[in-house]
Amino acid sequence: MQKSLLLVAHGSRRAESNDEVRRLTDRVRDTSASRFAEIECAFLELSPPTIPEGLERLIAGGATEITVLPYFLAAGRHVAEDIPEEVAVTQQAHPDVYIEIAPYLGTSEAMPQLLLDMLTDSAVAAS
Amino acid sequence: MQKSLLLVAHGSRRAESNDEVRRLTDRVRDTSASRFAEIECAFLELSPPTIPEGLERLIAGGATEITVLPYFLAAGRHVAEDIPEEVAVTQQAHPDVYIEIAPYLGTSEAMPQLLLDMLTDSAVAAS
Repeated sequence: MQKSLLLVAHGSRRAESNDEVRRLTDRVRDTSASRFAEIECAFLELSPPTIPEGLERLIAGGATEITVLPYFLAAGRHVAEDIPEEVAVTQQAHPDVYIEIAPYLGTSEAMPQLLLDMLTDSAVAAS
Repeated sequence: MQKSLLLVAHGSRRAESNDEVRRLTDRVRDTSASRFAEIECAFLELSPPTIPEGLERLIAGGATEITVLPYFLAAGRHVAEDIPEEVAVTQQAHPDVYIEIAPYLGTSEAMPQLLLDMLTDSAVAAS
């Protein structure tokens, strides 16, 4: 059994936003120790790799269990329909691989505390 | 001195998404103890209250210092331009109130750990 993680973001026309997700993925990898064999990211729109491409990479790397983590704040159509539909494409091609979709970021019980922890002296005046 | 907090989200056509932000705001309020006199939310688009409306409510409630916390994952135009422009409208009308904009959610140093902490048995199979 080899367990891997795919962080899925919306994707943006701005290369910087997509790079932000890639850097976050690197930080998740650094933080996770050996919990996952591989950790990659994919994008729903506007930037490669697509979700099926990201899943195929992990499977090619030997993954037999993959968790898809939606980096989304709200339960819109993207989370409810688009991500499951894209994941299903790969699931059907690889019935031997167990693929699960984790709750999206916005549901985290720890979010209120994380938001409050951000409010340090680093805030900047608005005017 | 009375310090209040305004959580600013994008806003959605889906009432449920906006309600999710309102519930999150309630949870932030419950978590914050007495750190802020008042904690409210506002939306950049598609749902009331607007950012100036949210700020005016806090000022009417007695706030002399307000922190605006962008509930956004990426540093797009909304974070870089739109939110500061909306905040500036209220800042100019109330030069006596100190308004600061905190870093947006996506910059949180704690995000990688929060994402990993979400990966419990609550994930659901994709197929």
